[in-house]
Amino acid sequence: MSTFDPIDHSHRRRNPLTGDWVLVSPHRAKRPWQGQVEKPQVADSVAHDPSCYLCSGNTRINGEINPKYEGTFVFTNDFAALMKDTPESAQSNDDLFTLEAAKGTSRVICFSPEHNKTLPELTLPALEGVIQTWQEQVADLSKEYVWVQVFENKGAAMGCSNPHPHGQVWANNFIPNEVAKAEKSQKAYFDKHASSLLLDYANKESAGGSRTVVETDHWIAVVPYWAAWPFETLLMPKFACPRLTDVNEEQKADLAIALKKLTSRYDNLFQCSFPYSMGWHGAPNNLDNTDHWQVHAHFYPPLLRSATVRKFMVGYEMMAEPQRDLTAEQAAARLQELSDVHYNESAG
Amino acid sequence: MSTFDPIDHSHRRRNPLTGDWVLVSPHRAKRPWQGQVEKPQVADSVAHDPSCYLCSGNTRINGEINPKYEGTFVFTNDFAALMKDTPESAQSNDDLFTLEAAKGTSRVICFSPEHNKTLPELTLPALEGVIQTWQEQVADLSKEYVWVQVFENKGAAMGCSNPHPHGQVWANNFIPNEVAKAEKSQKAYFDKHASSLLLDYANKESAGGSRTVVETDHWIAVVPYWAAWPFETLLMPKFACPRLTDVNEEQKADLAIALKKLTSRYDNLFQCSFPYSMGWHGAPNNLDNTDHWQVHAHFYPPLLRSATVRKFMVGYEMMAEPQRDLTAEQAAARLQELSDVHYNESAG
Ligand SMILES: O=P(O)(O)O[C@H]1O[C@H](CO)[C@@H](O)[C@H](O)[C@H]1O
Ligand SMILES: O=P(O)(O)O[C@H]1O[C@H](CO)[C@@H](O)[C@H](O)[C@H]1O
Repeated sequence: MSTFDPIDHSHRRRNPLTGDWVLVSPHRAKRPWQGQVEKPQVADSVAHDPSCYLCSGNTRINGEINPKYEGTFVFTNDFAALMKDTPESAQSNDDLFTLEAAKGTSRVICFSPEHNKTLPELTLPALEGVIQTWQEQVADLSKEYVWVQVFENKGAAMGCSNPHPHGQVWANNFIPNEVAKAEKSQKAYFDKHASSLLLDYANKESAGGSRTVVETDHWIAVVPYWAAWPFETLLMPKFACPRLTDVNEEQKADLAIALKKLTSRYDNLFQCSFPYSMGWHGAPNNLDNTDHWQVHAHFYPPLLRSATVRKFMVGYEMMAEPQRDLTAEQAAARLQELSDVHYNESAG
Repeated sequence: MSTFDPIDHSHRRRNPLTGDWVLVSPHRAKRPWQGQVEKPQVADSVAHDPSCYLCSGNTRINGEINPKYEGTFVFTNDFAALMKDTPESAQSNDDLFTLEAAKGTSRVICFSPEHNKTLPELTLPALEGVIQTWQEQVADLSKEYVWVQVFENKGAAMGCSNPHPHGQVWANNFIPNEVAKAEKSQKAYFDKHASSLLLDYANKESAGGSRTVVETDHWIAVVPYWAAWPFETLLMPKFACPRLTDVNEEQKADLAIALKKLTSRYDNLFQCSFPYSMGWHGAPNNLDNTDHWQVHAHFYPPLLRSATVRKFMVGYEMMAEPQRDLTAEQAAARLQELSDVHYNESAG
C-alpha cells in the first residue's frame, strides 16, 4: 500500500478563518471539459465610452452628471441594496421565522477615469489613490456603521455589469456572516496562542515560500493552504494592523506595489483580464480590543483551466463542501512562474 | 416616519438550518441589468445522441460501453473526486495547517435513456424509478460510508457538462461542512423544543400557505422563509422521516408527484429548461439517535429575472453574506401563479 501524498491523494484542509473544510482532489484535474465556456474578457479599446455611466462627465441612469474626475470618484449607488432610513422592526423570537431590519448604504468607487484600464494597468500613484479612497470610505462610514465592506467584482463572469474599473463599498448596521466567523476564529486563536492568527500565518508563509505569490517589504499574498477557488489568494500585512485605516503612508505605497504585482500575475496566467471578486476584512467597529485582528484581502477568481473554463461551485459544493482540482501549492507554482509585469506593459 | 414593512424595507432573515443570515433588499429588483446574459437552455431534440457518453449503448471516455438500459443506469464516475483506497495521513495538530486524508467514491445516475427529457418530463413511474435508485444508492453506500450526498446539477449555468438527464452520488468517509451544520442545528432545536425543526416548519408552512409552491398528501415544497437564491425551494416530508431510505412505497409515489409538479413550475416560470443544483440531506450514518432529523431536498436555481439573467452570488455575498432582490413570499407568489403541468405537456 502506498503512503499518503497530498499531490496524489484526496484530502481535506481546514480554513482556520471560518472553521470550514475544503476537499482537495488533485488527480481530478485530468478530466475532460465539455461544459459551458466563458467569453474571454477583452479590454475595451476606448479610454472614454460615451455610453458608460461611470465615465467622467457622463450622465447616469438617474440623470445625475458625473464630474470630470481625474483620480477616483465615489457616489451613492443608484440601486443600493441598503438604505439608511429603514424603520426598526419588531423583535422576533420565533426560532423558525427570525427577522431583523437592516440599515446601511452602498457606494460605487470608480478607480480611474480611464474606461479601459484595470487595477494592474494603473500607475503606482493611481493605485495609492485607490487605497487612499478605500481608507477614506472606511473612516467615513465607520462613524455611523458597525461594518464597512469594501469589494470589487471584476469581469462578466463575476456578475460585473460594467467594464469601467470600479469597486463598491457597502456599510451595514449589523455584522455579516463571514465577518462574524472571521471575528470568532481570530479571537479564539488569540485566546489560545496569545498571538494573532494572520500575523503568525503571514510569518510562516513568508518563511516557507511554497504558497507565496507576491512578497514586498510589508505585504505578502499567498494561495492559502485552505484555498477553495483554484487561484484564490489572501493578501496580508507582515506587521500588526487591525484595519485598513491603520496602514501608514509607507505601507500604503508598498501595498500599491503588491496589488499591482498580484493582479498582473493574475492577468498573465491566462493572458486575459482575469475575473475575480475581491474584498477587505478588518476589525469591525463594535470591538473594545482589536489585538486579535489583522486586516486582509481575499481574492476569489473563478477561472480553472483557461480564459474560458471556470470552476463551478455547484452541486456537491453547495450541498456538502467546496472541492478543488489542484492543490494550493500547485496553483501557487503556476502563479510563481509568471512575470509580475503585466503583459500589456512588458517591453515588446 | 413609516413603519417597517418587509415588502418595502431591507431586512435580514436567519436560516435555522445553518445559523447564517440572508440580506433581503426588495426595493432593489428595479435596477436595470447590463451584465452577462446566459444562453437559454434549449432541450436537445434527439432522444438518442450518438456522441453522448451517457446515452444507452454508447461508449464512454474510458472505453467502457453503456448497457442498453431502460430505466435508470448507475456507474462509477470516470473522473471521481474521491477514491476508496486513499492511504491514511498523519494526524496534523497545527491550527494553521490542518489536513486529513479523504476517502469516498462518486457515481453518475442516468435518470432515463431518453437524452432529451428532464425530470419534469418523465412519467410518474419513471420518476418513482429515479427515487428508488436514489434509495438503493444511499442504502448501498451507507454500508461503507458515513455520508452519502445525492445531487443533480442541471443546466450549463450550473456547470453541467451534459444535457442528458443525470445526477450524481458522492460518498464520503467524513461529514461535510453543510451536513455538520444541519446536524448541529436540528439537534439544538430538538433539545430545546422536544420536536423536530423541519417537521415543525413543514406544519407551519402547510398551515400558512404563503410560501408553499407544491403540496401533496405527504410532501410540501416551499420557498423557505430564509431562501438565499431567488427561487430557492425546500422539499420536505409532512411525516417523521430521517432518511430517504425511510420513505415507503406510498410516500414514494407521492414524492414523484411532488417532484414532477415542482420542476414543472420551475420550467414554466421562464418557459425554459430551468437550471438548478438540487440535493438531498438526511441523517448521517454516525448517529445513534435520529429523532431530530428530517430528510429534505434543497433546490438552488440561479435565474433571477428571465431565462437569460441570473443572480450572481459574488462580491458582497462572498465577503459578507447572501443578498436577495425579492422576498421569499414574492418568489413563492410567482411560482404559485403558474400551472403545475409542464409547458411541453399541456394540451395545445
Ligand atoms: O462532475 P461534473 O458534472 O463534471 O462537474 C460539476 O459538478 C461537480 C460536483 O458538484 C463540481 O465539482 C464541478 O465543479 C462541476 O463542474
Ligand atoms: O451591484 P452590481 O454590480 O450591479 O451587482 C453585482 O454585485 C452585487 C454585490 O456583490 C451582487 O449582489 C449582484 O448579484 C451582482 O450582480
